[in-house]
Amino acid sequence: MEGLLTRCRALPALATCNHQLSGYLPRRFPHCAPGRRKRLVLSCLFQPQNLREDQVLPLEGRSGDLTCKSQRLMLQVGLIHPASSGCYHLLPYTVRAMEKLVRVIDQEMQAIGGQKVNMPSLSPAELWRASNRWDLMGKELLRLRDRHGKEYCLGPTHEEAITALVASQKTLSYKQLPFLLYQVTRKFRDEPRPRFGLLRGREFYMKDMYTFDSSPEAARQTYSLVCDAYSSLFDRLGLRCVKVQADVGSIGGTMSHEFQLPVEIGEDRFAVCTSCSFSANVETLDSSQMICPACQGPLTETKGIEVGHTFYLGTKYSSIFNAQFINVHGKPSLAEMGCYGLGVTRILAAAIEVLSTEDCIRWPSLLAPYQVCLIPRRRAVRKRRLQSSWGSSVSHVTAAAALLHCLTLLDSKEQLTLKNLGKGVQKSTYTYVQTLVKTVIEPTPHFQSRCYSTGGGVDLPDEGSYPLITPVHSLSKVFQFQMA
Amino acid sequence: MEGLLTRCRALPALATCNHQLSGYLPRRFPHCAPGRRKRLVLSCLFQPQNLREDQVLPLEGRSGDLTCKSQRLMLQVGLIHPASSGCYHLLPYTVRAMEKLVRVIDQEMQAIGGQKVNMPSLSPAELWRASNRWDLMGKELLRLRDRHGKEYCLGPTHEEAITALVASQKTLSYKQLPFLLYQVTRKFRDEPRPRFGLLRGREFYMKDMYTFDSSPEAARQTYSLVCDAYSSLFDRLGLRCVKVQADVGSIGGTMSHEFQLPVEIGEDRFAVCTSCSFSANVETLDSSQMICPACQGPLTETKGIEVGHTFYLGTKYSSIFNAQFINVHGKPSLAEMGCYGLGVTRILAAAIEVLSTEDCIRWPSLLAPYQVCLIPRRRAVRKRRLQSSWGSSVSHVTAAAALLHCLTLLDSKEQLTLKNLGKGVQKSTYTYVQTLVKTVIEPTPHFQSRCYSTGGGVDLPDEGSYPLITPVHSLSKVFQFQMA
Repeated sequence: MEGLLTRCRALPALATCNHQLSGYLPRRFPHCAPGRRKRLVLSCLFQPQNLREDQVLPLEGRSGDLTCKSQRLMLQVGLIHPASSGCYHLLPYTVRAMEKLVRVIDQEMQAIGGQKVNMPSLSPAELWRASNRWDLMGKELLRLRDRHGKEYCLGPTHEEAITALVASQKTLSYKQLPFLLYQVTRKFRDEPRPRFGLLRGREFYMKDMYTFDSSPEAARQTYSLVCDAYSSLFDRLGLRCVKVQADVGSIGGTMSHEFQLPVEIGEDRFAVCTSCSFSANVETLDSSQMICPACQGPLTETKGIEVGHTFYLGTKYSSIFNAQFINVHGKPSLAEMGCYGLGVTRILAAAIEVLSTEDCIRWPSLLAPYQVCLIPRRRAVRKRRLQSSWGSSVSHVTAAAALLHCLTLLDSKEQLTLKNLGKGVQKSTYTYVQTLVKTVIEPTPHFQSRCYSTGGGVDLPDEGSYPLITPVHSLSKVFQFQMA
Repeated sequence: MEGLLTRCRALPALATCNHQLSGYLPRRFPHCAPGRRKRLVLSCLFQPQNLREDQVLPLEGRSGDLTCKSQRLMLQVGLIHPASSGCYHLLPYTVRAMEKLVRVIDQEMQAIGGQKVNMPSLSPAELWRASNRWDLMGKELLRLRDRHGKEYCLGPTHEEAITALVASQKTLSYKQLPFLLYQVTRKFRDEPRPRFGLLRGREFYMKDMYTFDSSPEAARQTYSLVCDAYSSLFDRLGLRCVKVQADVGSIGGTMSHEFQLPVEIGEDRFAVCTSCSFSANVETLDSSQMICPACQGPLTETKGIEVGHTFYLGTKYSSIFNAQFINVHGKPSLAEMGCYGLGVTRILAAAIEVLSTEDCIRWPSLLAPYQVCLIPRRRAVRKRRLQSSWGSSVSHVTAAAALLHCLTLLDSKEQLTLKNLGKGVQKSTYTYVQTLVKTVIEPTPHFQSRCYSTGGGVDLPDEGSYPLITPVHSLSKVFQFQMA
C-alpha cells in the first residue's frame, strides 16, 4: 500500500482563491527547467505514513499515549507528526483541511458582524496580574522573560489583551457597538498530561471572539447570535453538537455554554433531559442530581468533546481595564462583554474521531483536503494506445477539475489492481474516488465514481455532499458520476 | 474627520472564499433580531484612530520609537496598535491585507510545487543544541521551561524542526524529491531594540520554506526556482525589489541572497553595479571595495529593507539530523537543503513605506483591504426622494459589489461635503473611491470614481490595477468608472 502511494501521482490544486485572484494562472508550470516535473504529484506529496501498528506506536514515545482513533489514524496516514509532548507538526493534508475550516468559521463569524483581528502570543504579565489570572492560572500558563527581564506568558486566551485594546479607544460611542472581534491563532496551555493527539495539546489553534455591547440586554442578544452561528457552523460540518449549560471556570462571568460533540472517548460528561430541551455539563449539577431541574424528568448522561465554549462576562474585564463607551445620555459606561471559543485543530480531530471507521479516515465533506481521487483502471492503463494518450487525457480532466480547486489525481502507470488501489485510497482522505475507464480518451470521457464519505454508515448532510459538482457545469461533460 | 468616519458606514464583504464555499450566503443577515443592524458598517468597524500627532506619539511609550512613515500612518489610521515592545495587534484592515498577501504567496509557492505545513512555535532545546544554535543565537532566542522543567525556545526559524521531521521518514526515495515545504506562521526574535513598527518586531509573521533535493545540481535548480517565485511575487505586488548577494549569517550554508526593497529608512546597505547585473549586501564586500568584482565598474550604494532571504544550505542540517533518502543506486544519501524566508508582516509595512505619501496610505492594489469606497454626494443625499430610496439603492449596489468581495461602503446621511469626505477617505486605505451621484436611483445608476492608488506619482503595475472590474461583467451596469 505504501508502495502504491509512492508510485502514484497527484495534482493538488491551489489551496485558496478569491475572485480577485482566481484568474491567476501559475506561470512557471509550463516552462520550468528541463528535467523538473510540471506538476506536483502524489508520489511527491510529503505524507510520512506509518501504516503498520509497530511504526505508529513509538512515535508518541510511550505506547500509552496513543489513546484514540483519530490520533492513531492521523499519525498512520501522515496527517500529523509529533514535534514534542502535546505539540504536532500539521502536514499538508491537515493544513488544507484547517484552511477550509477557517474559511467556514470566517463566513459564520462575519455573517454576524465579526471583525477579524490578530493579537500577539507574547502577552505581558502586567495584563494578567491586573485580572489576577497570573496567579490563578498557575502552571497552565507558559511563562518567559525577555532579554530585559520583562515577564510574559504565551496567551491561552486573550480577554485581558482585547479589553485593554478596546479600552484604548477613548471616543467610543454606543452607536458603534456591538464590537464582535475575533482571531484564529495559536494558543498555548501547559497541559499536565497532553493526550488524544490534536484533541488535547499544549499548542493548538483556537478561534476566540470577544464581544462588547452597550447594555446587558444587547449583550445577551449578541450571546444568542454567536451561539446560533456556532450551531450553524456545526450543522454545515455535519457534526451533531449539543449545547449544554457549563461552568464559567477561571474565565469568569455569569453564564456559559459548551458545544459538546458526543463521543465515547470524550473527557467531558454532560446530562441531557429526554423530556425537555435541558442539557448541562455534569460539573454544574449536584453529583446526585440526575433529575432535570426544569421538568423533573430523568437525565441521561453522555460523554463528549468540548468543541466550543461561550461565556457571558458582564463587566468583569471591562471594569478592570476601564473599557468604556459614551452612552445614549452622553455619560461614560462600562462595556458588557462576552467571549466565545472554538477549538480549530480540535474540531478537525473530533470530526475524524466521530466520522471515521477504524481503518478509514472520513472528513466532513466541506473539510476534505481533496475531494476527488482519480484512478486509472489497470486494463485501460495496460493498453499502449491509452498510455500514449494518457498525458492529454489527464490534461483534459485536470483542466476541468482545476476549476474545482479540490482534485487529487492518482496517476499510476504500474500494474496495480483496482482493488489494491482502492485500499490505499480508502485509508487516505478523499471524499470521492474516480475510476478512469478506457473511455477516458473517447470524445466524451467516461468515469466511474464512488463516494467513500457516505460509506461505513456515516450520514453526512445533503448540503455538503456534492460541493464539487454543482459550481462548475462544464464538469458534467467530463465526469459521469455513478454513486455507490 | 474622525467624526466623519464614525458617522459613516461600510459593508465589508467576506474576507475569503473558494469555489466550494462561494455559493454560501450568510443566513443571519436578513432575519437578525429586531433592533440589530443588518450589515456591518464603517461606523462599527473597529479602527482605533489617532489622527492627531499628539495622540499617536504616546502610543509607543517613548517618542523616539516612532521612527518611520509606515509606523506612523499605520498607528494613525488604526491598522495596528502596540501590545508590548515590538509586538502589535493587527487590526481588521491589516488582517484583510495580510490574508490577501498570504494567498498570493500560496499561489507562488504552490506554482513551484510548494507544500504547506505548520510547525509548532514551541521548539525543543535538544534540536537547537544539536545544531549548536542554542548557544549561537544567544539572547535573540526567547526561551522558556514547561511545568516539567523541559526547555524550549520560541522558533525564530525552523531548519532544525523541519530537518528532523523529514529525517523521520525512513523510506524516502530520490524519486519523491524535491520536497518544497513551507509554512506561514508567527516567528519570535528577541530584538535588542525593536523599531519601525512591523518592520522590526519581536513577534511577526514569516513565510519560511525548506527544500530537500537529491543532488547539489537539483538543489541549485530549486534555489533558482524559488528565487524566481520571489521575483514574481514582488512583481505582482508592484514592489521593485533588488536581489543581492548576502551573508549566510547564523543560518549557515554556502550561498545566500537577499531581496531588498530600496528605501531611505532601510537598515541594510547594498551595492549595485551600474554596468553589469552585480549587486551585493555591503557586508559581503571589503569596506573599501566599491568596485564591482565582476566588471570592475563603479558600485552605487543604496539603503534597503530586507523583505526576502534565500540560503543554499547544502548538507549542514541534513547531516546533523541524518535526513537521508535512497539514491538511484539504492544507497542512503544526505538530502541537499535550501531555506527561504519572506517577511509577511514586514512586506505589508515596507509596501506602505514605499508607496504611501506622507499623509495617505497606499497599498499594493492586490493587497488593499477594501478596493472600493462609496460616497453619497451631499446634494443627492439631501433630497428626500433619494434618502427614501437610499436603502434599495445600496442593496442594489452592494449585491453587485458583493461579488467582488472587496467593497467598503460609506453610507453617510449627514450633511458632509464631498471634499471633507474625500479627505477622510484619502487618509484611509482604499484603492478606489466611488461617488454616488443622484442618478444612483435611475434605472442605470451612475457613479463617479477616482483611483487613489495611482495618485501621488506611484506607479502600480497594469496587471493588478483593475482587479475588481474584470471578473464580474455585470458590474459595468452598476459602476461607471471615470479614472482620475
